[in-house]
Amino acid sequence: MSDSVIEAETTDRSVDAVVAAAAAAPWAELDLADRARVLRGIADRLDGHRAELVAQAAAETALSEQRLTGELRRTSFQLRLFARIVLDRDFLDVRIDPPDPDWPMGAPRPDLRRINVPLGPVLNFAASNFPFAFSVAGGDTASALAAGCPVIVKANPGHPLLSRRVGELVAAALGEVGAPAGTFGLIFGRAAGVRALLHPAVAAATFTGSTAGGRALYDLACRRPVPIPFFGELGSINPVFVTAEAAHRRAAEIAAGLAAVVSSSAGQLCTKPGLIAIPADARLADELADLMHRSPAPTGPMLNDDIAAGFAAAVERVRSHPEVRVLAGGGPGTALLLATTARAVLAEPAALLHEMFGPATLLAEYRDTAELLALARSIGGQLTVSIFGERADDTARALLAAATAAAGRVLWNDWPTGVSVTYAQQHGGPYPATTAPASTSVGAAAISRFLRPVVYQQVPDDLLPPELRTGNPLAVPRSVNGARPR
Amino acid sequence: MSDSVIEAETTDRSVDAVVAAAAAAPWAELDLADRARVLRGIADRLDGHRAELVAQAAAETALSEQRLTGELRRTSFQLRLFARIVLDRDFLDVRIDPPDPDWPMGAPRPDLRRINVPLGPVLNFAASNFPFAFSVAGGDTASALAAGCPVIVKANPGHPLLSRRVGELVAAALGEVGAPAGTFGLIFGRAAGVRALLHPAVAAATFTGSTAGGRALYDLACRRPVPIPFFGELGSINPVFVTAEAAHRRAAEIAAGLAAVVSSSAGQLCTKPGLIAIPADARLADELADLMHRSPAPTGPMLNDDIAAGFAAAVERVRSHPEVRVLAGGGPGTALLLATTARAVLAEPAALLHEMFGPATLLAEYRDTAELLALARSIGGQLTVSIFGERADDTARALLAAATAAAGRVLWNDWPTGVSVTYAQQHGGPYPATTAPASTSVGAAAISRFLRPVVYQQVPDDLLPPELRTGNPLAVPRSVNGARPR
Repeated sequence: MSDSVIEAETTDRSVDAVVAAAAAAPWAELDLADRARVLRGIADRLDGHRAELVAQAAAETALSEQRLTGELRRTSFQLRLFARIVLDRDFLDVRIDPPDPDWPMGAPRPDLRRINVPLGPVLNFAASNFPFAFSVAGGDTASALAAGCPVIVKANPGHPLLSRRVGELVAAALGEVGAPAGTFGLIFGRAAGVRALLHPAVAAATFTGSTAGGRALYDLACRRPVPIPFFGELGSINPVFVTAEAAHRRAAEIAAGLAAVVSSSAGQLCTKPGLIAIPADARLADELADLMHRSPAPTGPMLNDDIAAGFAAAVERVRSHPEVRVLAGGGPGTALLLATTARAVLAEPAALLHEMFGPATLLAEYRDTAELLALARSIGGQLTVSIFGERADDTARALLAAATAAAGRVLWNDWPTGVSVTYAQQHGGPYPATTAPASTSVGAAAISRFLRPVVYQQVPDDLLPPELRTGNPLAVPRSVNGARPR
Repeated sequence: MSDSVIEAETTDRSVDAVVAAAAAAPWAELDLADRARVLRGIADRLDGHRAELVAQAAAETALSEQRLTGELRRTSFQLRLFARIVLDRDFLDVRIDPPDPDWPMGAPRPDLRRINVPLGPVLNFAASNFPFAFSVAGGDTASALAAGCPVIVKANPGHPLLSRRVGELVAAALGEVGAPAGTFGLIFGRAAGVRALLHPAVAAATFTGSTAGGRALYDLACRRPVPIPFFGELGSINPVFVTAEAAHRRAAEIAAGLAAVVSSSAGQLCTKPGLIAIPADARLADELADLMHRSPAPTGPMLNDDIAAGFAAAVERVRSHPEVRVLAGGGPGTALLLATTARAVLAEPAALLHEMFGPATLLAEYRDTAELLALARSIGGQLTVSIFGERADDTARALLAAATAAAGRVLWNDWPTGVSVTYAQQHGGPYPATTAPASTSVGAAAISRFLRPVVYQQVPDDLLPPELRTGNPLAVPRSVNGARPR
């Protein structure tokens, strides 16, 4: 890894000043066109400084320039997507109930007009593994700004200089449209993050990282005198279930795909598959071991020493289990393939369903369909579950049902890494995948995390927000009397 | 109050059996038409047993038959509204992103199809003050069943026999369509409620009641090994701000309205105004005191001894403040009018912004507009804020902005009691009004609390839920490629 240059930790006084400035910033009052301009302005600056930013990111994270270039593109795209979402104004979810003297509830219905408003200052804990897409100007910042919330980013210690530089670009984009001071703030250091999380003016927080770290912050958020929503994306094993038919017919293809997704970005992806259920009687395990011996995919160095140490400890925990054996790899720069039985996983799920954040995965051999389904039904909350199958039969349906119960995203004959930023995307899932199972941190719906509805009762037109006025001067999509938006 | 007949507390073993049955009940798999039939079937049974149920409720709660008859009508209407919502299928929020090889993110977009699925078994803690609308077959049960979640109700100890009877009617409606056993369960006793809340199979909980009780349960929900969403509606003062012009021109009308809303249902409404800001130089306080001397509105007895004792303690806490005086009332069966200054409230908000759950309210006299606005900006999270004003001037706009920042519902020249069940309604607000500021417990959006999205990636048509298939065989409203539903 690179020489690590640690930015000074933000002092208590500075944290308080940053949060107070965010709380006082009337960012929500800015015209939506200007809000969108800021998002596009950040995107333009990221793209305009691509070479400099990628080089800085590569120096601090040891990720490849190719990967980082792709991630930067994804990040600026994401900002522009939220700019479009802001202008569409669907996110306001305007609903209007005109007065109805004969409303069958038994009492006249008053005039009720509902709109989403921003929650208030949002604190984002940046991730280590996506220095662009889940960091200072990443999805949490883009969606919170889009919602109308001032943002405070707690920088990840793994890329402080990049964080500082991206923060400057965000500030420049805000300055260009005359956005209020305090709309965006950047803080450094663990103590600073905790202090901000406990500040009464912070209204919500996001986090992407480890289960232990995320749970500790979630607990703090819940124990505040005034608890706040905490959108944590924590751990996920991202199980892959391979049916007997698929293992039989596509062993080489599946083996190659698995080797690639476990190795890429040194396995440091929240959607890296960490458990692969395969039939015991197929040769898929041998095929995989052979492949990884013949042409081991290079994994590259890890993000930093902390991540490397955490990975080593997690691997040791799984590998030391008496029913786990090393199948292939694990040397310097190559992925590690462990193997066990589905029976062992079912007997001790806590020991074996343990996230190894790095280039390693665990094969679990099942003896029959019953064992496959039992495993699929026992895996707990996940970001993703993938199924490799050949036919739409009862086993496939049962696997899909189990996957739906466990995960936010369910894939068929596809690998879960490379989360697409789209309108329908759902990057979340039941705990411990996230602390808020109805939320997503990727895709258009990510903006919903930072909004709450307010309904106006009998408020005259000239006092209503323009989006709610009878003439609909801004042509906002609205649902009226329960009908769909038009 | 009535003789209190306490149902036996549910044993640990029975609680576990009820939760296990809920977890095993494939209620979500029932056809949506049958799901809607169950909701209408409950409504029909409530209406069909109106005389019996109202008499039982009156005997247990001391609420008037007129009030209870209206509440029952509201409750059956609410069930029918959710039946309609189920059939509309808008709540599934289906979004489809077809594959796009040129998606500008930098990588081809896979086929992604998103739909809401039920969270799983929901535990509802019933309220004391609405034995129909916020109890066994109330809004939380109706919306959770509508979402596809099995429901366990922890009965309120204030109306156990009514709870049992309504539970029988719910079970009968479920039985009529052959709904799975375990879809609905009813438990009694504080320990049973806590045990159910901590049961691993419970996926979400709702609560309507006191801040202390709700916070304790929220804390338990957050501290579980697997935390769950907890939708608590706790305390609210529901401040009313009367501008100088309104106080001058409509003193008699405002006084009469206030006396009525503070007295009705013995003030035991979560939206009862507990703070009325009025100008110090108007005669509104005298007018109110006169009115309540001349023709005190009868408040009726309180729900039960516990509520009465809690009310007495809260009143004593506020009344004992050196800057609070009794203006009128407070004798048996009449509402209590306390008075203080806005300055005193601003100096000691914790002492004076204290919910008195019963027939009492506190007038706070302000000296000028600056003090009125300072008060409006200091009131914390609320279910409602009401403004009585004459003109759409800067003061009105500033009050509306402060109200929007504090509350889920903002009213103009209207009183907040009598929450209408509608499409746009929002009954919620920032803490302590609720533990989940983006949620509502009344109105169509209440169903969202019990849903989470799942996205299917590259799943073939014949394995997808019918709502997601390319041909849209069920004609479900869907948004495609970010466009609005059609």
